[in-house]
Amino acid sequence: MSTPDSSLQTVRISLAERSYDIRIGSGQLSDPLAWQGLPKASAALIVSNETVAPLYLERCRQQLLGHYARVDAVLLRDGEQYKDWDSLNQIFDTLLRTASDRKTVLVALGGGVIGDMTGFAAAVYMRGVPFVQVPTTLLSQVDSSVGGKTAINHPLGKNMLGAFYQPERVIADLDTLDTLPERELSAGLAEVIKYGPIADAEFLAWIEAHIDALRARDKGALAYAVKRSCEIKAWVVGQDEREQGLRAILNFGHTFGHAIETGLGYGNWLHGEAVGCGMVLASDLSVRKGLMPADFLPRMRRVIERAGLPVTAPKLGLQRYLELMRVDKKAEGGEIRFVLIEALGKAGMHGADGALVDAVLQAHCA
Amino acid sequence: MSTPDSSLQTVRISLAERSYDIRIGSGQLSDPLAWQGLPKASAALIVSNETVAPLYLERCRQQLLGHYARVDAVLLRDGEQYKDWDSLNQIFDTLLRTASDRKTVLVALGGGVIGDMTGFAAAVYMRGVPFVQVPTTLLSQVDSSVGGKTAINHPLGKNMLGAFYQPERVIADLDTLDTLPERELSAGLAEVIKYGPIADAEFLAWIEAHIDALRARDKGALAYAVKRSCEIKAWVVGQDEREQGLRAILNFGHTFGHAIETGLGYGNWLHGEAVGCGMVLASDLSVRKGLMPADFLPRMRRVIERAGLPVTAPKLGLQRYLELMRVDKKAEGGEIRFVLIEALGKAGMHGADGALVDAVLQAHCA
Repeated sequence: MSTPDSSLQTVRISLAERSYDIRIGSGQLSDPLAWQGLPKASAALIVSNETVAPLYLERCRQQLLGHYARVDAVLLRDGEQYKDWDSLNQIFDTLLRTASDRKTVLVALGGGVIGDMTGFAAAVYMRGVPFVQVPTTLLSQVDSSVGGKTAINHPLGKNMLGAFYQPERVIADLDTLDTLPERELSAGLAEVIKYGPIADAEFLAWIEAHIDALRARDKGALAYAVKRSCEIKAWVVGQDEREQGLRAILNFGHTFGHAIETGLGYGNWLHGEAVGCGMVLASDLSVRKGLMPADFLPRMRRVIERAGLPVTAPKLGLQRYLELMRVDKKAEGGEIRFVLIEALGKAGMHGADGALVDAVLQAHCA
Repeated sequence: MSTPDSSLQTVRISLAERSYDIRIGSGQLSDPLAWQGLPKASAALIVSNETVAPLYLERCRQQLLGHYARVDAVLLRDGEQYKDWDSLNQIFDTLLRTASDRKTVLVALGGGVIGDMTGFAAAVYMRGVPFVQVPTTLLSQVDSSVGGKTAINHPLGKNMLGAFYQPERVIADLDTLDTLPERELSAGLAEVIKYGPIADAEFLAWIEAHIDALRARDKGALAYAVKRSCEIKAWVVGQDEREQGLRAILNFGHTFGHAIETGLGYGNWLHGEAVGCGMVLASDLSVRKGLMPADFLPRMRRVIERAGLPVTAPKLGLQRYLELMRVDKKAEGGEIRFVLIEALGKAGMHGADGALVDAVLQAHCA
């Protein structure tokens, strides 16, 4: 249960097609070493948003100007509700207006929404250009940095359009978390907490012991949380890059979570808040299915609550929940599949009948 | 120089990730064997257009109903000018409205535009669902059936957004060519002709000997032309699936061709017409660069003309041509690269200075 320091740590992601590094530490954004050895090209395009750009765009641009003759930027509107075709098209318009060729390097500077959209733009622009992730939120540092999942939302469903596409590198500067609103820090902690019950019981205990340090943005605690989260995700993804099976366990809390997000309309709850609350529901379902002992629910509920996350779900009604979960990508042939905990550190996919889901919703909806 | 018959011929496409068959012959659309062994799923979605659907949709649907509990169809507007986000989104809307899951099989019934859009939709819907190509034009049977290139156009450039994505199978029914307008048959012949100079001198001679039979839709001649074209393309693509190098030779005539298409506005010239004319210009450039003897130009010009294709380019002006070619995906760092013929059956990438390009345009523009 030691807390290492916040100097540079590297997680190597090894994949069939190619490998890349996640650099985690303080001061990465201004460290020339972090920016060396990226693909050669005549131009780079930074994709960011109105909130992040005033804070970090210039630092990022200065580093890139040491390697690319032209560095452009496109600033998108901030928020999950703008993770759509119109925003994606702003990236394409910029690329085409500047006659960007198929070697142009895209740089995602921002949170998960920016990362998902930039990655998807990189995957499809001229059928694929290289891209670099510079995640500036805890959620994107621990979640979207690993796994190559990129996407945009469709009015009828979240992340419905996307691609599997790997970055050239991830540069996770912990200093950017200093400017993160409290609510977003908590949202990021939801994904950190997730890695415990699905893959590493010891990590869950570590999180419980360090939850206050994490909320106080202790760099050492954050460095370990980000590193361990990336390692666990990399281990899972490495065994199932195209999301055929095992990888689904990363969606613990996400089936309920996506239903909450879509049901309330994107942008009302943060993704991490919906996942946090979704984990409470999925933990309860794990108990009701007889997979976990009764004390698992209050334990999960407590650490989620201490992370500053909602533990009570919105009252959308059983039918609406079922309808929203059925369109989830994990549904197959209309049957809803949940990621449930089978033992501390072990998760699997399970169906659940309507009555059980109803009981869970009755217990946790406001 | 024999002309084989039109009974079933199969070209096997072997790729790293997976392999698939192209079935070429008469009566394929109604042959249950052609539709056996596709991926299991609860639903299939046929994507077609207003022109093709009245002719072949029911036959296709009947075959699919033998394998899938639900078979839906979405009909797009017909034409290259509709190969855009709005049409693509019609596919997504249909998939999401019918709550289609990630196993749903997409079936592209139509020409290259339908194939490109359906393939791209399949590549990105839920980050990838299986799809089957049923090409109903000569162009799509010889070109888009092999190689996995999918795309839509952007107002600022053709095929700018897309993915490399392989079909499960290609079912090329030669009988569908009976209903093809003459102009489109000629457009398809442009891509058939292309395979001669870039890869197979004997095939060029065979085409010259059978050009009238091909235009008369002789099934035996068509079967051989489609088969040989697919074999050559498969050989090229097999060595360069992600279009890093060699594969570029398939774009002989396409740099000028894309400029013509974009310059005139999509839908004025057919893609094959622009490529046919583009091959005349690229042949001339091959001669002017000293790569080919002078008689190569009239030879190419004559077979292209006999195929019923335009050999005189529109007068857009040198600057406009250069501007349009610079945004072409083959341009790198602003330099325009042309596929030129180095010997009969051998092509390579070459730059060309403005004066030489100007001379070519002067010689062939109306």
